[in-house]
Amino acid sequence: MNNYQNILLAVDFSEFDHLVASKAKSMAELFSAQLHIIHVLDNIPMPDTPYGTVIPLNENSSYDLLETEKKNLIQIGNELNIVLERCWMVWGETEQEITRLAVKEDIDLIVVGSHGRHGLAVLMGSTAKGVIYHAECDVLAVHLKNHV
Amino acid sequence: MNNYQNILLAVDFSEFDHLVASKAKSMAELFSAQLHIIHVLDNIPMPDTPYGTVIPLNENSSYDLLETEKKNLIQIGNELNIVLERCWMVWGETEQEITRLAVKEDIDLIVVGSHGRHGLAVLMGSTAKGVIYHAECDVLAVHLKNHV
Repeated sequence: MNNYQNILLAVDFSEFDHLVASKAKSMAELFSAQLHIIHVLDNIPMPDTPYGTVIPLNENSSYDLLETEKKNLIQIGNELNIVLERCWMVWGETEQEITRLAVKEDIDLIVVGSHGRHGLAVLMGSTAKGVIYHAECDVLAVHLKNHV
Repeated sequence: MNNYQNILLAVDFSEFDHLVASKAKSMAELFSAQLHIIHVLDNIPMPDTPYGTVIPLNENSSYDLLETEKKNLIQIGNELNIVLERCWMVWGETEQEITRLAVKEDIDLIVVGSHGRHGLAVLMGSTAKGVIYHAECDVLAVHLKNHV
C-alpha cells in the first residue's frame, strides 16, 4: 500500500487525548509521516466568527476562554514535537472541520478517539462515526477502553 | 503505545477487498502482528443455522452457494498467507459477528472498508460505523476512494 504521509490527530482536551495521541505518534513514526493536530472549537461562543475559521495560534486575543484553548493545543503539540504550522484550531462543527482540514492538508490518515469527551454511552463513537462518514481518507478510531 | 498483536481483516468479497486487504497486510507486517480474516455470511440463506455459527472451512457441504463463499475466503487467505485456523466464516449480522470474533480472538485492530459492497451513498460507511460502535478495540476504516 502507499504509506501514510500526513497523519491528522484530532484532540478534544479530554482525559483520553494522551491515548489517542500516543497511537497517532506511533503511526507517524512507523510510517515516517508528518503529524498534524487539530482541535475544533465547538464548546465556546465565538460571536461573529463563521464556521471553518482557522484561529491563529501565534496571536494573542483578549478572550480568556480562547487563550486557554490555544494554550492547551500548543502544549499537546509541543509534547508531540509538532511545529506550530501543523497545529490547527478551527471554529465549527467537529466532524466537518476535521474532514475539511484533512482534504486541505492532504491528510491520508485521521486518528480520532472512538468517543468524544461526552462520556455518554448513547453518544459513544459519534465523532469517530461522523468523521468516517465525511472523511475522504482512512480513519483510525482509537478505542477508549472502559471509559464510557 | 502497545503494538497491535492481532489484526482482523473483514472482507465482503467486493471489488474493494484487495485495497482493504493490502492495508491490513501492511499493518500486520509493520507491527509483526498475526493477521486474521473474517467474512460474515449475511447474504445467503442458511436455514436452521443460528446467528454466530462459525462455518468449518475444512469440511465440504452439498450447498453450492456456501462452497463458493468458502472458496472465495480461502483464496484471499492464501494470497495473504493466512493459515486456515485464522480464516473465519460466520453466519450472522456483519457488525456484530466481526466484533464478537474480535473479542473472542483477542483482536486489537479491526481493518474494514469504509463502505460495504452496497455501493450506495446512503449506506456508505455503515459497516465501518457499526463496527466502531460495537468494537472493543481500535478500528481502521479504509476509505474506498471514488467508489460510491
